[in-house]
Amino acid sequence: MVDSLGEPGSGRGTIIIRKHERHDLEKMFCPETVAVIGASAQEGKVGHAVFRNLLTNGYTGVIYPVNPKARSIMGVRSYASVKEIQDNIDLAVIIIPARAVPGVLAECGQLGVRNAIVISAGFKEVGGEGIELENELKEISRKYNINLVGPNCLGIMNTDPKVRLNASFARVMPAAGQIGFVSQSGALACAVLDYAKAEGVGFSKCVSLGNKAVLNEDDFLCYLAQDSGTEVVALYVEDLSNGQEFIKIAREMTGEIRRPKPILAVKSGRSAQGAKAAASHTGSLAGSDAVYDAIFKQSGVLRVETVEDLLNYAVAFATQPLPRGKRVGIVTNAGGPGIIVTDSCVSHDLEIAQLSEATQRELRGVLPPAASVHNPVDVLGDAQHDRYEAALRIVLNDENVDGVIVILTPQYMTDIEEIATVIVRVKRETPKPILATFMGLYDTTKGEDILERGGVPHYPFPEGAVCTMAAMGEYARWLYRPRTTERVFVVDAPAAKAVIDKVRAAKRTALPEVEAVQVLAAYGFPVPVWKLARNEDEVRAACQELGFPLVLKIASPQILHKVDVGGVKLNVRSADQAVEEFKAMVERAKKVHPDAEIWGANVQKMAPPGKECILGAKLDPQFGHLIMFGLGGIYTEVFRDVSFRLAPLRELGALRMIQSVRAYRLLEGFRGEPPADIKTIADCLQRLSQLLVEIPQISELDINPLIVHEQGKGATVADARIILTESPR
Amino acid sequence: MVDSLGEPGSGRGTIIIRKHERHDLEKMFCPETVAVIGASAQEGKVGHAVFRNLLTNGYTGVIYPVNPKARSIMGVRSYASVKEIQDNIDLAVIIIPARAVPGVLAECGQLGVRNAIVISAGFKEVGGEGIELENELKEISRKYNINLVGPNCLGIMNTDPKVRLNASFARVMPAAGQIGFVSQSGALACAVLDYAKAEGVGFSKCVSLGNKAVLNEDDFLCYLAQDSGTEVVALYVEDLSNGQEFIKIAREMTGEIRRPKPILAVKSGRSAQGAKAAASHTGSLAGSDAVYDAIFKQSGVLRVETVEDLLNYAVAFATQPLPRGKRVGIVTNAGGPGIIVTDSCVSHDLEIAQLSEATQRELRGVLPPAASVHNPVDVLGDAQHDRYEAALRIVLNDENVDGVIVILTPQYMTDIEEIATVIVRVKRETPKPILATFMGLYDTTKGEDILERGGVPHYPFPEGAVCTMAAMGEYARWLYRPRTTERVFVVDAPAAKAVIDKVRAAKRTALPEVEAVQVLAAYGFPVPVWKLARNEDEVRAACQELGFPLVLKIASPQILHKVDVGGVKLNVRSADQAVEEFKAMVERAKKVHPDAEIWGANVQKMAPPGKECILGAKLDPQFGHLIMFGLGGIYTEVFRDVSFRLAPLRELGALRMIQSVRAYRLLEGFRGEPPADIKTIADCLQRLSQLLVEIPQISELDINPLIVHEQGKGATVADARIILTESPR
Repeated sequence: MVDSLGEPGSGRGTIIIRKHERHDLEKMFCPETVAVIGASAQEGKVGHAVFRNLLTNGYTGVIYPVNPKARSIMGVRSYASVKEIQDNIDLAVIIIPARAVPGVLAECGQLGVRNAIVISAGFKEVGGEGIELENELKEISRKYNINLVGPNCLGIMNTDPKVRLNASFARVMPAAGQIGFVSQSGALACAVLDYAKAEGVGFSKCVSLGNKAVLNEDDFLCYLAQDSGTEVVALYVEDLSNGQEFIKIAREMTGEIRRPKPILAVKSGRSAQGAKAAASHTGSLAGSDAVYDAIFKQSGVLRVETVEDLLNYAVAFATQPLPRGKRVGIVTNAGGPGIIVTDSCVSHDLEIAQLSEATQRELRGVLPPAASVHNPVDVLGDAQHDRYEAALRIVLNDENVDGVIVILTPQYMTDIEEIATVIVRVKRETPKPILATFMGLYDTTKGEDILERGGVPHYPFPEGAVCTMAAMGEYARWLYRPRTTERVFVVDAPAAKAVIDKVRAAKRTALPEVEAVQVLAAYGFPVPVWKLARNEDEVRAACQELGFPLVLKIASPQILHKVDVGGVKLNVRSADQAVEEFKAMVERAKKVHPDAEIWGANVQKMAPPGKECILGAKLDPQFGHLIMFGLGGIYTEVFRDVSFRLAPLRELGALRMIQSVRAYRLLEGFRGEPPADIKTIADCLQRLSQLLVEIPQISELDINPLIVHEQGKGATVADARIILTESPR
Repeated sequence: MVDSLGEPGSGRGTIIIRKHERHDLEKMFCPETVAVIGASAQEGKVGHAVFRNLLTNGYTGVIYPVNPKARSIMGVRSYASVKEIQDNIDLAVIIIPARAVPGVLAECGQLGVRNAIVISAGFKEVGGEGIELENELKEISRKYNINLVGPNCLGIMNTDPKVRLNASFARVMPAAGQIGFVSQSGALACAVLDYAKAEGVGFSKCVSLGNKAVLNEDDFLCYLAQDSGTEVVALYVEDLSNGQEFIKIAREMTGEIRRPKPILAVKSGRSAQGAKAAASHTGSLAGSDAVYDAIFKQSGVLRVETVEDLLNYAVAFATQPLPRGKRVGIVTNAGGPGIIVTDSCVSHDLEIAQLSEATQRELRGVLPPAASVHNPVDVLGDAQHDRYEAALRIVLNDENVDGVIVILTPQYMTDIEEIATVIVRVKRETPKPILATFMGLYDTTKGEDILERGGVPHYPFPEGAVCTMAAMGEYARWLYRPRTTERVFVVDAPAAKAVIDKVRAAKRTALPEVEAVQVLAAYGFPVPVWKLARNEDEVRAACQELGFPLVLKIASPQILHKVDVGGVKLNVRSADQAVEEFKAMVERAKKVHPDAEIWGANVQKMAPPGKECILGAKLDPQFGHLIMFGLGGIYTEVFRDVSFRLAPLRELGALRMIQSVRAYRLLEGFRGEPPADIKTIADCLQRLSQLLVEIPQISELDINPLIVHEQGKGATVADARIILTESPR
């Protein structure tokens, strides 16, 4: 099952990221010359802000302002047009009215400019003519092979001291650091930069994506994957341009390239789409946010709830080694915060490390008698830096400890700055992560500055440190996970396609159970033996052939909800009973659906008992097939206890889908019941994935229920339906 | 059912708080004279810190240092003992070694000192002799009627400019404000004060409780309830001294006194007790944290997860009016944060207000065409203060809006300080709450200072504002809830007590079903007709009398888990079958429990079908009876979908217990099923409450299942057991 165990960064499978090298963005971020088209001398204008940012932030190249109305801007000689500049231009920054942009961009293209940032607004986001203008930009970029950022964006930054490029109209430029920041919202980027400036958070590259007419998050991820100055990427997105491509790139970047880098993402719009009505039962649970959750899970991207967490986590990833497990050591000078941090660890699925006997003995040797040598280690309220340093070293040395959270409350004797200094010193010597909680914001500030400069993340409250440690652990688990592949089953694809062609020929899109099970059978699903009985004689013949007990189900392409018309009869025990039920069932169905074409009844052997599960799939117009798994009835509908993944599904992904529902315990064997055949469910999920990849014209598919029997005894598809897309593709 | 609808602050039922006036703490917080026993001139000593804090923070009374070894401390004449002071002492602050404290406290008592703070440590928290010393302090306090804070505490503060008392060894003294702060951890108090100082959060009174030898949180709540300078109380507790008393006091304070005040509480130790093994099934779900959840829910206290939220919420409660509903208006200068705040509102059960046609028209009149006049209202990135002010006023005027969140991202044109100024101006004129999110921390600082001074809470990220608005809404719902009472049912208490006396006489504590149902029947529970059949003849007689189908259940005081021994047979349909089952059942039981006293079988009419619920109770040694409600089986055991309350239970509390489980939808009628008889469940919960109050020697009680039939058709107690406390009380 496992083709590689915990071997990240092998450099295998980096095909996708390499492919993207066609967009060579090196000159975008490190241009030797920049033309600022629309540079202005007038304060308050965006064209002024951009030019001033470039001029006053230490840019190491040559800046050419372009403005037909000025001889110079802020003392720099200005040009009437880009054509007049007697130099190769590596990057054009364009801040002129939208209608004038296409002409200028084409001019740039003709001159061989390969990188452009269109800051101007008035494109797709305003609709109407704006959409046409944006299409023109795309066309021109394609024609001249221009890497285009925007339009309608804040710009980009490169803090590398060798470049110091601030091609944006942001109010502040952040410090240099190891975080690559990509934001779909310019305003949010402003806020993040402002917050980061005050908190001393450093960035390597910053990009405001704007309308993503040409370059999108995928391109910048590929660039940052290979950028030696970037250790971690922080992403703010409102949508992804291409989910499948994103999964491939992010998956390589977070686990497969030689030096994998974590990606953190805030995706807003969690609720907005939730209200979206959807016809199918599966669909109503999916909504578009489930797609994003699936994308992030499948690509190793850590989905972060808030922008605050995004920065907190990014700083830690940029400065700390990863923990190798979940066991946290805690060193504190107060009991209360020790309890708080313990609570928080437990609720974030971290473990309070069990300190070894030797560690406890050592601690007893350096701490006063009233101190606690159990975890959390309480060095007491009068502790000063020496006691902190000793305790910290001893706890870090314990092999039961994967990372340490140090807590300081500013008490009367607390020498805050000295304590910060020793934490930084210890940090330099340990391969384990250290996060600090200096509770307070007033007397603690100077200590916090020392931690910041020393590369130790710090938080005013314990919860921040705990969430961050948990996020680092989650990424570590992704990085060192066993690698699995997409299984390929031997199936009878032509048989499945023949069924679908027949449905298409009949100008239908809905496959009722009798047809759906043929497709599923061709793909090796555990479909019970069945007979379509069109009349009483065939019912008797089916009884003869199948034996009892039986199930009768109405068969009609117009009746997908069979129970609603009394179209299902379980536990039929004789041929006479079967005939009687058949007649009554057909009659009822005709009454409710006088126009329905009734084929007869589907006669099946009753499935042995088991756990009822639902396997579903729904085609997302943008991202492909979303697969759903859950236990039936209430678990799905009231508790919303379901999991999602996009097809294609790997072996580990299928297993995780099953394990991640809360009702998983029922499958493991609850209250002495035997465990269910989980292997078969995983098998079915992977067969479903293959079916969806090979027959992409499936719009919706429900297997409900899949009756899962005891371990080793398989499962039974007890009902199913398939809906095709309106037109074949 | 409802005895008063949304009429808080009637001043009725403030008996408990008044009763506490025997601890008159006025002189504790506003002393005219303070003796500092153990004052020291030596830097680094706690006795120095306390004295310096009193001397240098503007205290308006007289300070008397007491130290036999010094003539003066920091220039103030010192006394060898408190007896030498020629003045009445209102408050003694004691910072001397633990062993010396009882003697000095007694001396104070003899001199008529009525208020004392023992800062010294070395008492209960160190065990051994410390426990005895603390008992001595209690004894002396009782003898001389001394209000004693501590021992082992940080001290207290009163920021009132008329007093300016800082009787603590904290490093910083916060600004004056309306928040009363009570902390069980001195170190955590230090951290909060430090953080608050930096954030400009003001307090009225601060108290560090220490070991709570005499005064505890209840006493300070009663004081702060009546303190005109306090608008809201922030509480950090690790345990409560008296849960039932706390409920009564907090309930009055948060809803019944003339000017109700919100109480916010962080209670740590959520996880620690979770691991505590408990024999009973109900107990294993309860754990001690469920008790605290119940206490807070029943008393209107908002339980807050983090210290950060504690301060955020407290500031808002101190400065803003309460929202009258859940509908939030949003004004923003950027789309991205608008989406984030929308997501966050939805996940915190707030509604995005639907702006009226008139409002949208008005907004269109003052905003540029590209602006969004739907909620969230986007005033666009180039918005300045005039546009913010106009939009804010219009949105606040909409009667569909209960409160407003204003978002600012620091963009190029944003005049941050002017915008802050107009927000403060508008705030003064509206009866609705306004919360600001100024995203950033660098350019936004001056604006944030303006908001702070103007009494507008602000947050660097949208989530902070949303959580705060949700908390204010939650308190408003509590304040304006319908008031209900504890119902008193007519029951046959002597019959129930007779059963229990019989069990006691037999030296047993366990009541098997046959006895438990007698107790329940006496209290009016829907117990089915039953017969205890001791032999085959009695089985036949019972069949004759009851009719079919029947249930047979083994009856033995030693067999509480009947199913485990094959001691339950459902759906018995004839007398012969009943006799056969009876014989087999008794035989099986004797085999498994050879020493058990087998009384026979309990014969009952089968209950009609229904939803299986669990009603449980468990005696918490400290707080009394905790009542549990949940749906049976998996809902309780896997999904932990249960609710808890402490007895006694009011009518509304019983209903809320049922409504607050997620599986409530199943009771309402899921998938076309008829609704269950929820009224009967509420009735049973209240009868259970009355039973527990009147027969407090019940240690555990389980009704599992209570089969709840369709609406109007009642319920059936299908099984029950009771365990008594080891000794009657």
